[in-house]
Amino acid sequence: MNILVTNDDGIYAEGILHLVNKLKRVATVFVIAPDREKSATGHAITIHDPLRVTKFHGFSDGVKAYHVDGTPADCVKLGVSTLLDDKPDLVISGINAGPNLGLDVLYSGTIAGAIEGVVQEVPSIAISLGGHDDFNFEKASDIVMTILLQLLETDFLSKKTVVNINIPPLNSQDIKGVKFTKLGIRKYTNFYEHRSDPRGKSYYWLAGDLMELTNTLDTDVHAVDNYYVSITPLHFDFTSHKDLERMKQSNFHL
Amino acid sequence: MNILVTNDDGIYAEGILHLVNKLKRVATVFVIAPDREKSATGHAITIHDPLRVTKFHGFSDGVKAYHVDGTPADCVKLGVSTLLDDKPDLVISGINAGPNLGLDVLYSGTIAGAIEGVVQEVPSIAISLGGHDDFNFEKASDIVMTILLQLLETDFLSKKTVVNINIPPLNSQDIKGVKFTKLGIRKYTNFYEHRSDPRGKSYYWLAGDLMELTNTLDTDVHAVDNYYVSITPLHFDFTSHKDLERMKQSNFHL
Repeated sequence: MNILVTNDDGIYAEGILHLVNKLKRVATVFVIAPDREKSATGHAITIHDPLRVTKFHGFSDGVKAYHVDGTPADCVKLGVSTLLDDKPDLVISGINAGPNLGLDVLYSGTIAGAIEGVVQEVPSIAISLGGHDDFNFEKASDIVMTILLQLLETDFLSKKTVVNINIPPLNSQDIKGVKFTKLGIRKYTNFYEHRSDPRGKSYYWLAGDLMELTNTLDTDVHAVDNYYVSITPLHFDFTSHKDLERMKQSNFHL
Repeated sequence: MNILVTNDDGIYAEGILHLVNKLKRVATVFVIAPDREKSATGHAITIHDPLRVTKFHGFSDGVKAYHVDGTPADCVKLGVSTLLDDKPDLVISGINAGPNLGLDVLYSGTIAGAIEGVVQEVPSIAISLGGHDDFNFEKASDIVMTILLQLLETDFLSKKTVVNINIPPLNSQDIKGVKFTKLGIRKYTNFYEHRSDPRGKSYYWLAGDLMELTNTLDTDVHAVDNYYVSITPLHFDFTSHKDLERMKQSNFHL
């Protein structure tokens, strides 16, 4: 099995290193990842600038790796279409330092890397680890392997679905199990701090705290809050068919 | 009615100018748009850098305008949460120079501006004009106004749905009417040109042609190809509920 690994924390991040070290025991692993952190880049791709691709020797023998001065979506698009000789069997994006739950998926570069995988018709998985500072990527990678081996025995990995896996913070409490979930509601009280720079010119900087929202039992947010690994299947049919049915009844003129 | 207008071609683009000139006749218009082109930035937002906000005097009297050194999603998030005194009644993103059909919506900064509108719980519309070079934004703006006035008489504008409007190229043939559509299939034969820079170092640049794909009558691609304005409602429930039902039957262990 050939696996293409990317992330949005950059190729030097600890999360991708631990993941690759485990994956290479069961698969041929290629790494194509951004040369620096690319969090919150959404599904941005680079069209007006060239992309530089540089060989990277930070992984152990047998792992071909490149870093790219672009986004996670760039890495997967360039990798699958051009850099790799054969289409990989799987794209994995992660392990992200921090969760990607609920509406996070809209902004997340980690998710975008996996989405670009399915755009390129490769089954894809996004993996994120909850917490703030002391991420236990070693233990998280073990959990990923346990789940991956079970996923491979199902037909859940498809060319149309991203499997979004979130692991709770691993340092405080034991993980209770795995739950298949829908996206919950996770919003921030977005506001911008208005500051002045050393020359007295003003600027804005995005701040905001996570809102306390009630999430039902069947959501990823609830699962991770309660020490379960959440697995959420994501699709990319953005048409609101329900709205469309209503709209079709009307007759607009020009 | 207060309308916040943004785009991804930048505040100096012709499309936003024509649109604002028409909108201001029926509403109070605020413009908060990127200070330069931000195409294909997807739903990227700026979190690791400050945002500079600069007053812009390029619109006529009565139109308050700012440009921001960020993405369309930044502009709407910053605008609605912080810069505007009151939440606008409507966010409009456009008029984009070029269509946003099918899978384009994944990469489009125009669409992301409108999506951020609904994230901020403001009904939102994305508008794009087909073609390559000689865009007739004057005529396109008239079409937008005709459609907008009809939309406002329906309940189609909601805090959960982006209304994605695509206008066919306006220079060759008469527009036949308006169709409510689903997203079609629009893919590119993505490949990267491998070149050398003047110093002999290699780089890759995204190329690729639009693939000839068969689109059914009910799609936005088919409508625009046949000189209809397409209106597609977009939702943001990324959970694949169909996959989830199947997955829930299984029992994964750690």
